[in-house]
Amino acid sequence: MRTIASLGEVRLIQRMSRCFPSGSSVRVGIGDDAAVLRGMGRDDLLFASDMLIEGVHFQHSTTPAQWVGWKALACNISDIAAMGGLPRWAVVSLGVPPSTSVRWVDDLYRGLARCAKRYDVAIVGGDTVRAPRVVVDVAIVGTVRAGKAILRSGARLGDRIFVTGRLGGSLVSGRHARFTPRLAETQCLIRHLPIHAMIDLSDGLASDLWQIARASQVTLRVDDARIPVSQAGKTVTHALMDGEDFELLFAVPPRAARRVPRSIGQVPVTEIGVVTRHGAKVELVKPHGHIVPLIPTGFKHF
Amino acid sequence: MRTIASLGEVRLIQRMSRCFPSGSSVRVGIGDDAAVLRGMGRDDLLFASDMLIEGVHFQHSTTPAQWVGWKALACNISDIAAMGGLPRWAVVSLGVPPSTSVRWVDDLYRGLARCAKRYDVAIVGGDTVRAPRVVVDVAIVGTVRAGKAILRSGARLGDRIFVTGRLGGSLVSGRHARFTPRLAETQCLIRHLPIHAMIDLSDGLASDLWQIARASQVTLRVDDARIPVSQAGKTVTHALMDGEDFELLFAVPPRAARRVPRSIGQVPVTEIGVVTRHGAKVELVKPHGHIVPLIPTGFKHF
Repeated sequence: MRTIASLGEVRLIQRMSRCFPSGSSVRVGIGDDAAVLRGMGRDDLLFASDMLIEGVHFQHSTTPAQWVGWKALACNISDIAAMGGLPRWAVVSLGVPPSTSVRWVDDLYRGLARCAKRYDVAIVGGDTVRAPRVVVDVAIVGTVRAGKAILRSGARLGDRIFVTGRLGGSLVSGRHARFTPRLAETQCLIRHLPIHAMIDLSDGLASDLWQIARASQVTLRVDDARIPVSQAGKTVTHALMDGEDFELLFAVPPRAARRVPRSIGQVPVTEIGVVTRHGAKVELVKPHGHIVPLIPTGFKHF
Repeated sequence: MRTIASLGEVRLIQRMSRCFPSGSSVRVGIGDDAAVLRGMGRDDLLFASDMLIEGVHFQHSTTPAQWVGWKALACNISDIAAMGGLPRWAVVSLGVPPSTSVRWVDDLYRGLARCAKRYDVAIVGGDTVRAPRVVVDVAIVGTVRAGKAILRSGARLGDRIFVTGRLGGSLVSGRHARFTPRLAETQCLIRHLPIHAMIDLSDGLASDLWQIARASQVTLRVDDARIPVSQAGKTVTHALMDGEDFELLFAVPPRAARRVPRSIGQVPVTEIGVVTRHGAKVELVKPHGHIVPLIPTGFKHF
């Protein structure tokens, strides 16, 4: 019997997108940070969801309920931000064991509410059901100027590759739950620069570089020494592999690269590479100058 | 320690809606079948989600994966239908154990795809994660003419109460997964009749009568002998308590009651009661004519 574990996540999602043909109202369907839907006026709608499972995305013992709530909404806001959009409305489906304390659930709601208020999202509904372990799924709808959503597929030859923040160690530092979705930063960037492609870093820089490479059918050459490593991440390997940084990875045309700010507020913005040729590939330039292919090995669900 | 089990579902949702204030773009927030959001043109948006948990909403051994997929989307379509809207786009979050067979997941997708095609919904994205047991959460966005969404809160004195289909026994008959969401029926009803209030029957007639009574702050008096009982349901008690019928319960003003059709296609439409006075209550008229209060005791998650 072939199992999901043997199939892997990427092929599972490919399988899914073949199953679900999209109609004429869908500009972009399965495979980006959010779907892009033809709205009813000057705006398109963005639609995404993210599911958190106890024991996989957080541990009951180490992540306070407030931060589970924060993370559940913030990772969706991060998806909308990475499309260049503004988050608007969210629904929350919550599965909990009946033995869960009211206080824990109250704290979870408080975390959700705090994140919603901070980023001006209205939580407008959802579902509450019994489950053997805690599961929180948030779906979000945002808006973006019609035709202006930033996709993974827009990177072109010569584009410079940038990343916000410092990467790695998000699990050990607790940042995986307490992160700041880069909404202000994307709004600042798209106001001043032509962004060709963008993605939020959820599965690890290595894996998300591959997402842009695959979607744009280009080769990204990344300079190992330039990758910004966080204090908790310690090494470039962690910065490439750890995942759940929720920073932005984006591509801008060479003529605009000089205008990319070195930082936005407190958040550093670092040029890490360039699009060198056609064909989906990611290469790493090592300190001695030799070039090695980068295998997509970020966080794997299956 | 107070647990969710001791709090109960209704108070849990009340708690949630207190936590999440809604902004000016929200016409109706938490507490109806779907949220109603100010759209960008002639339409409002409807937004809802429903979570299915293995062992709670379906058994791996008795419900084929195709019907799990069908149910996951159909119960969301039912929510949109009960608001008088049309379903448009959905995202699917799926949690599965890595040992799940690819075939099972393919079958689940096939069920989702079949339902999507049948009701003209585009599945545009979602999330796929590892989980200890299968969990499927579908979020849906629909549209309805601006200001025309049908709420639970609109029932008025004198309104007649109707129900579609025949109720009860949905679990034993397998209908809980293989049901037909009443989308064509609601579209037919709203075209010809002023519907004051509507809800889809998910937690059982008794519980959902209470939802309308509470939201509209009125007393519903239901004639025990008129409740349409399905073959699998057998008794009025089952018809009142079983849940997951996914039929419609709705209220129309007395002057329009005569124009309600006895059936729509193959689906019977039955008058079962009347709104007798103000104050949230549900009463049952027993065969001998005496009236007993109906306690809300449909399916309880907690």
